[in-house]
Amino acid sequence: MKFILYSPRRKKLIQKIKKIKLIVFDFDGVFTNNFVYVFEDGKEAVRCSRAEGLGLKKIKDLGIKVLILSTEKNPVVTRRAEKLEILCIQGCNNKADELINFIRRNSISLEEVAYVGNDINDKPCLEIVALPIIVNDAHPDIRVNAVFQTRARGGEGAVREICDLFEKILLTK
Amino acid sequence: MKFILYSPRRKKLIQKIKKIKLIVFDFDGVFTNNFVYVFEDGKEAVRCSRAEGLGLKKIKDLGIKVLILSTEKNPVVTRRAEKLEILCIQGCNNKADELINFIRRNSISLEEVAYVGNDINDKPCLEIVALPIIVNDAHPDIRVNAVFQTRARGGEGAVREICDLFEKILLTK
Amino acid sequence: MKFILYSPRRKKLIQKIKKIKLIVFDFDGVFTNNFVYVFEDGKEAVRCSRAEGLGLKKIKDLGIKVLILSTEKNPVVTRRAEKLEILCIQGCNNKADELINFIRRNSISLEEVAYVGNDINDKPCLEIVALPIIVNDAHPDIRVNAVFQTRARGGEGAVREICDLFEKILLTK
Amino acid sequence: MKFILYSPRRKKLIQKIKKIKLIVFDFDGVFTNNFVYVFEDGKEAVRCSRAEGLGLKKIKDLGIKVLILSTEKNPVVTRRAEKLEILCIQGCNNKADELINFIRRNSISLEEVAYVGNDINDKPCLEIVALPIIVNDAHPDIRVNAVFQTRARGGEGAVREICDLFEKILLTK
Repeated sequence: MKFILYSPRRKKLIQKIKKIKLIVFDFDGVFTNNFVYVFEDGKEAVRCSRAEGLGLKKIKDLGIKVLILSTEKNPVVTRRAEKLEILCIQGCNNKADELINFIRRNSISLEEVAYVGNDINDKPCLEIVALPIIVNDAHPDIRVNAVFQTRARGGEGAVREICDLFEKILLTK
Repeated sequence: MKFILYSPRRKKLIQKIKKIKLIVFDFDGVFTNNFVYVFEDGKEAVRCSRAEGLGLKKIKDLGIKVLILSTEKNPVVTRRAEKLEILCIQGCNNKADELINFIRRNSISLEEVAYVGNDINDKPCLEIVALPIIVNDAHPDIRVNAVFQTRARGGEGAVREICDLFEKILLTK
Repeated sequence: MKFILYSPRRKKLIQKIKKIKLIVFDFDGVFTNNFVYVFEDGKEAVRCSRAEGLGLKKIKDLGIKVLILSTEKNPVVTRRAEKLEILCIQGCNNKADELINFIRRNSISLEEVAYVGNDINDKPCLEIVALPIIVNDAHPDIRVNAVFQTRARGGEGAVREICDLFEKILLTK
Repeated sequence: MKFILYSPRRKKLIQKIKKIKLIVFDFDGVFTNNFVYVFEDGKEAVRCSRAEGLGLKKIKDLGIKVLILSTEKNPVVTRRAEKLEILCIQGCNNKADELINFIRRNSISLEEVAYVGNDINDKPCLEIVALPIIVNDAHPDIRVNAVFQTRARGGEGAVREICDLFEKILLTK
């Protein structure tokens, strides 16, 4: 993965990344391809990528906190978060309020937060954090809010791509 | 999402959309990619998009009724409709008859109905409603029946695309 | 679906199709995309297309017999065949022998049989029938054996494409 | 599948293949597309290809040993290995150590081993074997380690492609 350091936009992105202490991820459409498998008994399943585990481990080893923030309360999110050993807040009607509460409790400022989303319910969070990130196939209405857009689509390596980017930046110089 | 208002075809579409009080969706191939997961015990699962929920909510908030009309009687359809909180009629051999009965009971005229389908068993419904819509990967034999074809394939954002289109039209001017 | 009648190759295909009384389908890679979902308890699931049902119904209404012939004995094949209401022979080490036994019992000659396959274990059957068909993503080693190759990949509409082709030919003049 | 014998690189690959007595496969991302289906009870499923069975059988018939070596301990790997009738070592923190122990017990030298991987935790194994292979969508950071990269993506025929390649080489001349 080559990385051009010259453009002012890249330079700004690097400066922002270096300050980040917490990355907050939406779940559906970010950790997954935004699809849900529906069974006859109403149970659900989602498709996640095995690539995320290695990426998130690297990020946590670098001292960055990771949080999943999901509107819907769903056991699959709990299970995935448990396996990846990351924090998870679910069932929040107002994601921005929840995010602000969380960073206050953890003495983190909005200048130190990156948020990764894919749809219009992520807009309030994308608007307040220092580093708003969207996946490649995010809804058009939130594209204006993003500082960085992943090359990978949601659920198809987007989380890993972000982790790899952070690692390259933080381990350089 | 840019939206060009000039073409006569677009103008006609906008006029039709403004009159719609009910959108009827086929399920398989519209809410799903027309695939079914078959298990050893004969149970089935389907793949739906999380993007639909936010779109359907917007449509319902605008006062438009939403109905799923499916030939096959299948628990997965029931479960998905329950979760999305939309009406659902299943196990109907004659979809056009069922549609006409439904609109009579609800005092809606065919001029106020949009129908979204993907295969030849949707033809009778597409032929009678004011706004017949097909998904991008609909069967070639029903393409002549459509006034609008989604850019998205069935189950891959087609329902959300329709909801977003209705929202843009109805909130404009 | 446009259909050009002029080429000698097309003419030969049409002549062959008009004589067919039985279409034999391999299951994995033809009715499915050749993938299998493996669960923790060893149970399996496969992905089929809802488009097949309407196609197979048309074929059967035209008086053509349909048979699934699968090397592996697997409950998912049984369940899918039951739902589609088609005959199914599974767990046969020698598919060509099984095919010959079946047509003898049903007084059908090899000149009246089409066979649809995707991999090298279909080779013996493809070599003996009048109309050997392969799906678009069949293994390269059986491409020489085919008279017709579907535009669709296995499990992604290949069965429907074949049914539609038969219908167009048999209903024309 | 045409096979050009002229390039020095191809010649070297052929020489390496002719010496191989053991092919070691990573599981996730090689036998699968690196995705995992997560259920509400935390259970998991993966998607494998039916094409692998015929390929692995050919390889084993040619006298080559096959081993799956997976970092994570997961019942789906056990089930798939059982069905494919291949050896499987799971839950190993250090894959290179495990690989070396295995070949010592089986009197195989590293010169006789091919390893197929897709991510950075495969790097130590790829670095020590005679024939390091990666799948088409392997992580960029291990591309330098590979002598051969499959045309197929992981889980989409990569294992079969390798088996077919070995068969062509070993049955030629």
